[in-house]
Amino acid sequence: MKVLIVGAGFGGLNVAKSLGGDSRFQVTVLDRRNYHLFQPLLYQVAMAGLSPAEIAVPIRAELSRFKNVEVLLANVQAVHPKENKVATDIGEFSYDVLVLACGATHSYFGHENWEVFAPGLKTLEQATEIRRRVLMAFELAEREKDPVIKKERLTFVVVGGGPTGVELAGAIGEISRYTLSKDFRRITPESARIVLIEAGDRILAAFDPKLSKSAARSLESLGVQVWTNSRVTEITEEGVAVGSEFLRAKTVVWAAGVQPSSLNKTLGVSLDRAGRVSVGETLTTAEYPNVYVIGDQAHAKSKNGEPLPGLCPVAIQQGKYVAQSLKNLVRGRKPEPFHYLDKGIMATIGRKEAILQVGAIRLSGLIAWLGWLFVHIYYLIGFKNRIFVFLQWSWHYISFGRGARLIVHKEWKSHS
Amino acid sequence: MKVLIVGAGFGGLNVAKSLGGDSRFQVTVLDRRNYHLFQPLLYQVAMAGLSPAEIAVPIRAELSRFKNVEVLLANVQAVHPKENKVATDIGEFSYDVLVLACGATHSYFGHENWEVFAPGLKTLEQATEIRRRVLMAFELAEREKDPVIKKERLTFVVVGGGPTGVELAGAIGEISRYTLSKDFRRITPESARIVLIEAGDRILAAFDPKLSKSAARSLESLGVQVWTNSRVTEITEEGVAVGSEFLRAKTVVWAAGVQPSSLNKTLGVSLDRAGRVSVGETLTTAEYPNVYVIGDQAHAKSKNGEPLPGLCPVAIQQGKYVAQSLKNLVRGRKPEPFHYLDKGIMATIGRKEAILQVGAIRLSGLIAWLGWLFVHIYYLIGFKNRIFVFLQWSWHYISFGRGARLIVHKEWKSHS
Repeated sequence: MKVLIVGAGFGGLNVAKSLGGDSRFQVTVLDRRNYHLFQPLLYQVAMAGLSPAEIAVPIRAELSRFKNVEVLLANVQAVHPKENKVATDIGEFSYDVLVLACGATHSYFGHENWEVFAPGLKTLEQATEIRRRVLMAFELAEREKDPVIKKERLTFVVVGGGPTGVELAGAIGEISRYTLSKDFRRITPESARIVLIEAGDRILAAFDPKLSKSAARSLESLGVQVWTNSRVTEITEEGVAVGSEFLRAKTVVWAAGVQPSSLNKTLGVSLDRAGRVSVGETLTTAEYPNVYVIGDQAHAKSKNGEPLPGLCPVAIQQGKYVAQSLKNLVRGRKPEPFHYLDKGIMATIGRKEAILQVGAIRLSGLIAWLGWLFVHIYYLIGFKNRIFVFLQWSWHYISFGRGARLIVHKEWKSHS
Repeated sequence: MKVLIVGAGFGGLNVAKSLGGDSRFQVTVLDRRNYHLFQPLLYQVAMAGLSPAEIAVPIRAELSRFKNVEVLLANVQAVHPKENKVATDIGEFSYDVLVLACGATHSYFGHENWEVFAPGLKTLEQATEIRRRVLMAFELAEREKDPVIKKERLTFVVVGGGPTGVELAGAIGEISRYTLSKDFRRITPESARIVLIEAGDRILAAFDPKLSKSAARSLESLGVQVWTNSRVTEITEEGVAVGSEFLRAKTVVWAAGVQPSSLNKTLGVSLDRAGRVSVGETLTTAEYPNVYVIGDQAHAKSKNGEPLPGLCPVAIQQGKYVAQSLKNLVRGRKPEPFHYLDKGIMATIGRKEAILQVGAIRLSGLIAWLGWLFVHIYYLIGFKNRIFVFLQWSWHYISFGRGARLIVHKEWKSHS
């Protein structure tokens, strides 16, 4: 059976690994990147805590031991499910079974022009760019004489109060208060103003309101101002407009909305309002039973009819489920419906605060943070990365330093 | 005394550190980058062995404990030694003493148009770009059907048989033979052709001819073809011309020539043929006794009248010497002449071969490699980096893996 997997994120990689070594399947994995990215820690790269290589592993290296799996770097342009074919920049691929696991990208809700001023955080390139902007802001403030401009340079705005936004705002707070505090002569990095803007009435809306409040207090203790019920109406080079108010800021990061892969539109199947593919309880499309869609690209439902959230555990479980379904299929068995085992949700704020919610359990503070740390390091794919990230973090924790404080420029060419 | 240091490489950083804490000096360090780079290991970043952050430390972090030292990110545009002033993109700086330590950049001997096809290796951006090209070459070969194009993609040319060129060629050989050997299905990475081109009659000309030969043999055992007496006459998108011969190759790296900072031309002092500032035995210019020039930017002479080589130990010793001279100066003492203590030279070929030459000692093989490893890790500035690089390398050595095998694209913007 020819299985074609598009995307080697948490979903796609788990399908490939679970089918790896089973010679009844000829598996091809297509991805635009040569690496699998551990997205939950991407904010650490943006905040100079980790290096790109510490949260990414080559897809080939992860799958090289499986002789029935091949990996190709390719950009998928369209899916033709009627002909069981996929069009890419390196030609067409045919399949018996297709697994779409392309994930999601940022949504600026129709304001794509905002991206230049407020990059999102989905790729390593974006993470490096955000790191550059944040570190450069302090450098530019240090050499600025005009107090008004200096203040603008030291104002950081994070748009979106979900886990990514909270983690970014917390990390900027920590960098300014601890890491950089002794490094400058003409500015006090502690005086940096960090504003987290959320359109809803509280941050971390997926969590219990008590935990949201606890997280907001932790952010405030790191100097972050939390603006709720605040909708961003414009972003320019000068800053952010929230209705009639204009917040002058040189550094703005977008963590507000996501949208699924634009590939979905080429499929000719039913999509939900957000543009995700609606899949049934076997994670296939209603129109094509040999086309699976998993992870952030899909709209799957939980037992009680709620849409499943865009989380790693969902994608991982779906990936393993698809592989098991296919194994059942070749043995002539009917697939069981997919059931998501909820492992809870968590978010971190700085170096020792987190919130954690599993079933009826609600935790915050240091214990939650240790739980967060354990889960994230444990799930970091690849033995090496796990050890190194742990060592790197132990070191940060002791030294208050940040290992990857490099301003790497966009162009590689440079002359002196 | 106002001391202005331009460039925080090995030379400049050592001046600043040695003057740090001595309140008789107000020290300002200007650099275009926010980090100090451990150049001798830059080829490891290009070859996916190390991450950028592992060989770079923020200049601020290195100097933050010295209250009399300030660091500013600035691009120096011209020096006006008659007025004791330096012009930068953030305004003018005046000084009592100026230390120029800007290092060198690549020289294409008048063929600057070659740079696009054959990047040099002096900056982190260039290292990441070379890494991208080398890894992409294998990816593109894997998905190529035409055997001629496939072969072109698997041909790698390194121009210049100095230490950098030898290290790069050796690392490409090793990656293709060990690291990637099991990762591909349609190509055998071991079949990659690697050509090291040297214009002189042997590689590593600064070493004893016996060691050059030993290094050439080691390279050959890693599959590298060594072409000596071969002068590159043209580089295009298709490959490299060596006289009438044309070597088709998609990946070319330039490690052939260096030239000092273009700032030198603005100084109005005597330069040598290569464009370096000729300095006397106190490392100052003949025209301006308060202008020191050190490191690769300067032409200083050894006791026997030979020009000092462009090596880290030279820059480090010169940096410390300048600081000591200035301390003598404020106490009214005359400076002693600078004497370079020759610590020898070394180069490495792959994971267990190196050559080492100290005084009358000539070493090659594993012992030389361990010596190389020790010296490089010892001198890696910053306690953290030292430990991490050592761990990273121990891991490579055991696992044959490469930690930083990421193809990071030039643009940060990306949409799915």
